[in-house]
Amino acid sequence: MIDTNKKHGTHSKTNWEDVVAQKKKLQADALAIKIEPLPSDKDGSITALTSPDEITSKILSGQLTSHEIVRAFIQRPAPGLISSSLTEVLFEEALREATKLDEYFLAHGKLVGPLHGVPVTLKDQFDVKGYDSTIGYVGRSFKPAEEDAVLVKLLRSFGAIIIAKSNLPQSIMWCETENPLWGLTTNPSDKAYTPGGSTGGESALLALGASMLGWGTDIGGSVRIPSHMMGLYGLKPSSARLPYRGVPVSTDGQEHVPSSIGPMARSFSMIYAVTKAMISAEPWKLDARCAALPWREDAFQEVQSRPLTIGVLYDDEVIRPHPPVARVLRTVVEALKAAGHEILEWDATLHAECVAVMVLAVLKTLRDCDQFYTVDGGKDIRDAVSQGGEPFIPHVEGLINAGAPISVYDYWALNRSKWELQQKYMEKWDRMKSPKTGRVADVVILPPMPHTAVPHRACRWVGYTKVWNFLDYSTLVLPAGNVTQEDLNEPWESAPRNPKDEWTCKLWQDEKHKMADLKLPVGVQLACRKLEEEKLLGIGKVVDEIIRKSRTAPK
Amino acid sequence: MIDTNKKHGTHSKTNWEDVVAQKKKLQADALAIKIEPLPSDKDGSITALTSPDEITSKILSGQLTSHEIVRAFIQRPAPGLISSSLTEVLFEEALREATKLDEYFLAHGKLVGPLHGVPVTLKDQFDVKGYDSTIGYVGRSFKPAEEDAVLVKLLRSFGAIIIAKSNLPQSIMWCETENPLWGLTTNPSDKAYTPGGSTGGESALLALGASMLGWGTDIGGSVRIPSHMMGLYGLKPSSARLPYRGVPVSTDGQEHVPSSIGPMARSFSMIYAVTKAMISAEPWKLDARCAALPWREDAFQEVQSRPLTIGVLYDDEVIRPHPPVARVLRTVVEALKAAGHEILEWDATLHAECVAVMVLAVLKTLRDCDQFYTVDGGKDIRDAVSQGGEPFIPHVEGLINAGAPISVYDYWALNRSKWELQQKYMEKWDRMKSPKTGRVADVVILPPMPHTAVPHRACRWVGYTKVWNFLDYSTLVLPAGNVTQEDLNEPWESAPRNPKDEWTCKLWQDEKHKMADLKLPVGVQLACRKLEEEKLLGIGKVVDEIIRKSRTAPK
Repeated sequence: MIDTNKKHGTHSKTNWEDVVAQKKKLQADALAIKIEPLPSDKDGSITALTSPDEITSKILSGQLTSHEIVRAFIQRPAPGLISSSLTEVLFEEALREATKLDEYFLAHGKLVGPLHGVPVTLKDQFDVKGYDSTIGYVGRSFKPAEEDAVLVKLLRSFGAIIIAKSNLPQSIMWCETENPLWGLTTNPSDKAYTPGGSTGGESALLALGASMLGWGTDIGGSVRIPSHMMGLYGLKPSSARLPYRGVPVSTDGQEHVPSSIGPMARSFSMIYAVTKAMISAEPWKLDARCAALPWREDAFQEVQSRPLTIGVLYDDEVIRPHPPVARVLRTVVEALKAAGHEILEWDATLHAECVAVMVLAVLKTLRDCDQFYTVDGGKDIRDAVSQGGEPFIPHVEGLINAGAPISVYDYWALNRSKWELQQKYMEKWDRMKSPKTGRVADVVILPPMPHTAVPHRACRWVGYTKVWNFLDYSTLVLPAGNVTQEDLNEPWESAPRNPKDEWTCKLWQDEKHKMADLKLPVGVQLACRKLEEEKLLGIGKVVDEIIRKSRTAPK
Repeated sequence: MIDTNKKHGTHSKTNWEDVVAQKKKLQADALAIKIEPLPSDKDGSITALTSPDEITSKILSGQLTSHEIVRAFIQRPAPGLISSSLTEVLFEEALREATKLDEYFLAHGKLVGPLHGVPVTLKDQFDVKGYDSTIGYVGRSFKPAEEDAVLVKLLRSFGAIIIAKSNLPQSIMWCETENPLWGLTTNPSDKAYTPGGSTGGESALLALGASMLGWGTDIGGSVRIPSHMMGLYGLKPSSARLPYRGVPVSTDGQEHVPSSIGPMARSFSMIYAVTKAMISAEPWKLDARCAALPWREDAFQEVQSRPLTIGVLYDDEVIRPHPPVARVLRTVVEALKAAGHEILEWDATLHAECVAVMVLAVLKTLRDCDQFYTVDGGKDIRDAVSQGGEPFIPHVEGLINAGAPISVYDYWALNRSKWELQQKYMEKWDRMKSPKTGRVADVVILPPMPHTAVPHRACRWVGYTKVWNFLDYSTLVLPAGNVTQEDLNEPWESAPRNPKDEWTCKLWQDEKHKMADLKLPVGVQLACRKLEEEKLLGIGKVVDEIIRKSRTAPK
């Protein structure tokens, strides 16, 4: 670690640790709120609800109030379980909001909107008026946002209740969740494991039943990786589809590999409902960077009424997926075939090239050094950290020291390479046609990661997710299975392709028994082309139903 | 000028001049093609045709063949008149294409497409297989394109015939048309005047009746300024609307202020027909950077059947328009009012700020130094020029020496400023409501430039056009009048606001008699928001009809 004392003196060290202590104290106080216990018959059943319709129908029929719903989600997990996932705690404000919603319903006999009473958590990037958006930097503490992010405004207008904000890694650009301000977020199944990242606070909270709907950001897999690792649904739309305004981010201003915001939840219906509501609210009238593209119900419906043409990519030819990841994908593919859908073999052509343009030296080092992410020589992250005086976490230190800044001229050359690869991928997709029907593939299905949740700081490859950020395509992760004892007997060819593959292979050999004992979740990833969110969600609904049916079917 | 001899030796100097001589010789040969003269009754009448329907109906009825049409356009102006506007000459190939179209029509009794037989010219950026795209650089000579640009492919599929490519300035980023390879393009009305730029070759050819449809690129006004100066129609759509693929450009790879391609013509119906055909051909299936946004006929129709709410900006508060430009806009506004449309006063709020982010030091120097355009320290242009060894033209030398390269970090900061201004302009537009109807403005009407065509190298301000590139809005220039002798008597307040305003004011004082004698054209500019091309064209049709009626009405 960089010794910040050399630069800032001892005073500075005391400073950042003081700030952390203050923030933690305030968090502990906010968590210690005294709430009237729920009637015992309602206790566990409320947090088991996963879709907005379940919530709103119970409110409409008088079985539940918003206040009871919020109390249930606040009380569900023990504070000790969730504190590593949280940043700002809004429980008191949330209960006041719930009371207001209940009063509104009593007075008017109708709901405020489609998410009336739904408890929501947000990655600590989304501005919520009156609360910090630290994005994991000590130096951003005690600088509360002056305005709600556009997304937060819209959520409130739908009747959703913000109950907390959640943890993320220093720099945001990592599939782990750790920073010197809020600490390390752990996997609720095992403290030695990560819940994924960078939206790892959300995935842990959702898996614990401490939230119904989470919101994250994704520039390389940060919504999809934690969703996959914690058995959740997670959508990464194309970047212009949902409103980013009011969401501070590291390396803000770069627009070559755009970051997307996206929802995470425990049901497909929640992802669908909130995405449709968000687009139907015409966010482009509030955020100039949003595409003025209305919700296309026809595209959502059309794919639900015919056999789909589905490309399947089992292996990106860089890092082989672990046996349970490969097995779950094969199982899903068999179920899709059995349901009458056509499967095309997809190949990994261009995937490595896309990742290579994003990565300074593919496979040369074990740690990702994203060429595009660090073209400023790490200055943005360095400046943000130096404002607080805290140390770098080792991953970030590697990231920002990966290379000297490149020139704007070279940066433009990277953009040209990007455009060429985007064009080539479009042409590749057009060529992937069904020999039977001549139809071009509707969607590609592939693993979200080569592995499940892993021990902290052990992720080395996010190529399965980040290729779609590079292309700005729309993608969705669905939960599809779990690691089983049978996976341990799967033959596992051991000749490594490269150092990262070797690392990943060894991860399975070292951890497989624990992974099977923990029954770690495994997801699948669906990808459609740019701005095809309606089509993707229509296909997601079909695929999710097939997966859920096959998982509950007697073996 | 930079002495390239110092760097390249005498040999290099000989080299670039040799290349120029060879290119000019080939051009002269291609222009000297022997063509059978047209029957005298057809001679002038063909090149007077301005809309595709006029062409196709005459072909369908057997009154004209494609071969006759191409011959007419090729023969119309004397080679001496057009040679300063041309780069590559495709007359022979065009006549062969025309013969093929005639054979197709004879064999099938139907047309190839909506532009069957329409002669088209292209700014020397659009790749045409087998011909150079020099973009004004000697070093790009004798490197013929291997493939047609997407736009060219689509034009051919519509039945259009490419007859020539046209001149543009070194670096492309100037409202003048001059480079050491092809020389200086002059205004057909007066050799001492510019036809505008950077698409100045096109505007001169169209004004001379040497083309029916031209295509240019616009990153600061390069389609609209020459259209305005030569009395033409010119559309700059939002950048993602039409396919840029296969169009090499200086500073390629930058994506903060995106360049658009757009059509230029002598009739509104041509602009409308070709834009609709282009979008209906789904260019996003051929160019991954195009928005997948189908032609929205309803948006085109809706604005034609109701009173419009029109914002009018007379003055951007930086450079006052010359008397004829102000008078023509007032006249158009009166005609719009008389036709029942509502006029709102638009103000220049944010215009200067938008331009400031694009310009290194607004008003500090007389010459534009676009901050965004030169963030690479001029390296891209410098490299392109050094490949050929030719000198810089003085404007370009000023441009590339304007500043040292900025860092990628500072570049991102510029992007953040851009996003903020785009957001603020969206919010400003939403506030500009009719006090009567509460309707938000449909469109803004403003001058395209503070002046008409001017003596060579005298342009100093393109803020009226480039603000819309910065915002990526859709804009259209329509011809609306001419300088008259009455304009000379217009009172002209002389207190200058700043050095550029003083320069522009003096231009009128020095040149006004000549401008009136030449009856120089004056246009108006319409601006709608991002990707609102259908709405803009619908409004353009309404406004164009009102302008043409008022221009022919007895005074």
